[in-house]
Amino acid sequence: MSSDFRMTRRVEFAETDLAGVLHFANYFRYMEEIEHAFWRSLGMSVIIRDSERSISWPRVAVHCSYRAPARFEDELELVLELTKIGHRSLEFEVDFFRGSERLAECRYTTVCCEMCGGASKTVAIPEEIRRVLEPQVTASGK
Amino acid sequence: MSSDFRMTRRVEFAETDLAGVLHFANYFRYMEEIEHAFWRSLGMSVIIRDSERSISWPRVAVHCSYRAPARFEDELELVLELTKIGHRSLEFEVDFFRGSERLAECRYTTVCCEMCGGASKTVAIPEEIRRVLEPQVTASGK
Amino acid sequence: MSSDFRMTRRVEFAETDLAGVLHFANYFRYMEEIEHAFWRSLGMSVIIRDSERSISWPRVAVHCSYRAPARFEDELELVLELTKIGHRSLEFEVDFFRGSERLAECRYTTVCCEMCGGASKTVAIPEEIRRVLEPQVTASGK
Amino acid sequence: MSSDFRMTRRVEFAETDLAGVLHFANYFRYMEEIEHAFWRSLGMSVIIRDSERSISWPRVAVHCSYRAPARFEDELELVLELTKIGHRSLEFEVDFFRGSERLAECRYTTVCCEMCGGASKTVAIPEEIRRVLEPQVTASGK
Repeated sequence: MSSDFRMTRRVEFAETDLAGVLHFANYFRYMEEIEHAFWRSLGMSVIIRDSERSISWPRVAVHCSYRAPARFEDELELVLELTKIGHRSLEFEVDFFRGSERLAECRYTTVCCEMCGGASKTVAIPEEIRRVLEPQVTASGK
Repeated sequence: MSSDFRMTRRVEFAETDLAGVLHFANYFRYMEEIEHAFWRSLGMSVIIRDSERSISWPRVAVHCSYRAPARFEDELELVLELTKIGHRSLEFEVDFFRGSERLAECRYTTVCCEMCGGASKTVAIPEEIRRVLEPQVTASGK
Repeated sequence: MSSDFRMTRRVEFAETDLAGVLHFANYFRYMEEIEHAFWRSLGMSVIIRDSERSISWPRVAVHCSYRAPARFEDELELVLELTKIGHRSLEFEVDFFRGSERLAECRYTTVCCEMCGGASKTVAIPEEIRRVLEPQVTASGK
Repeated sequence: MSSDFRMTRRVEFAETDLAGVLHFANYFRYMEEIEHAFWRSLGMSVIIRDSERSISWPRVAVHCSYRAPARFEDELELVLELTKIGHRSLEFEVDFFRGSERLAECRYTTVCCEMCGGASKTVAIPEEIRRVLEPQVTASGK
């Protein structure tokens, strides 16, 4: 059974700007934090290393829409959905709430990337990872 | 005569991550830096204050696509275009190059926002600002 | 009875650098996060605003010594001590642990600052704040 | 003949905080930027890699004192001095000016570190690096 994944995140002082609000680029850092927590919740990590190679997931496209500002010490709720598993890519959505108010929504695509030595290349998602992710895909889309 | 606006920006150590590349969220900081340099090149600032109010330009939507990673000490060329002036909003594109290789491209929309005291509201772009911006709009689109 | 104040903080991806470790400047952000959590634990905030003025605590001197690097997804324990209350200033120590290993130790001094309009000035610590802080001062020093 | 090394750095929007000033932790990023520019000015880099190993310079202690805040779009002048070369370590000072006003001063110590594979160890400064650095040491101290 799929379900969304949730995390609470307080807005820290250093993440605000002189307009008194959470700087817009920092939403992407929060988005990454919840994704990495999601990987850990599945018993994995966004970086998997073994003796020969490592698998990671660079972003190829990210998007964020902002509806209302977040402020210092706000306690935001982040909600992540894995919306699609492709052959080599994953699509996620992360929504940002303060109470019931949706402040922002992000969508992004990552690709499965294998690094050996200094070189990296895009690869098909390994079966053992796909098996863990598939039950997590949300039906909703939007 | 419109033209694009260019800036050189070196990738700093603190902006990289353990994957050895410029962290994806930092492209949005670079994007903001070139926009603010663009405002200064027009004799203005992204924040204009007078005794009663201040005008600024929060982002309402941002997008970035990544083609190839940037690395520590790379000297990137950023190219900004103001692609559209709406009633209350501006649309920009920023491309990131290393030599002739395009590494990333960002598009985003800002809205004209007036702040008095703690409150802020979206307003029509003031005429004196519109007059300065209009000759800068690129015909290209994409 | 005074005691130290503790917080767990995971090292996030965007906080690492190409050396694969928590970037040294980010220890100061963690240090600030635990201090602000400390203020909240006392029912206050690092910024107190009323209708006429606001009180905040800019840093005047900070120091950090690094013994061993912290890595992505490490769960660090931070320990804060308020070591001294002066007439206008506070002195803190924050230690960073991974398990029983001390990775880093920071010391810093903040001053009580009153802001009215755009101007700010150093002021004596207000009595109602001093009363709350005094029981928190640790005897230990170091 | 030794001399100090200078760089101009504008305060960017994302580097400010809700107090309207350059966030105190960002001085350490500026400090690192001027040091890396200093290495480049000597025809080197803070990271030197060859086929077997790499040499880099992690910080072991950093200190900064703040006298007056820097604000958005301020053009700061940074002045770096290499004040001491030890057997394995370097000591630097970086001062931050706005016009003739000194805003902040940082001191810090780095150690020469050799990385092979995942392991790192402190080593004596290689002769070929010491020869380049020695003429740069300032006599002044302070």
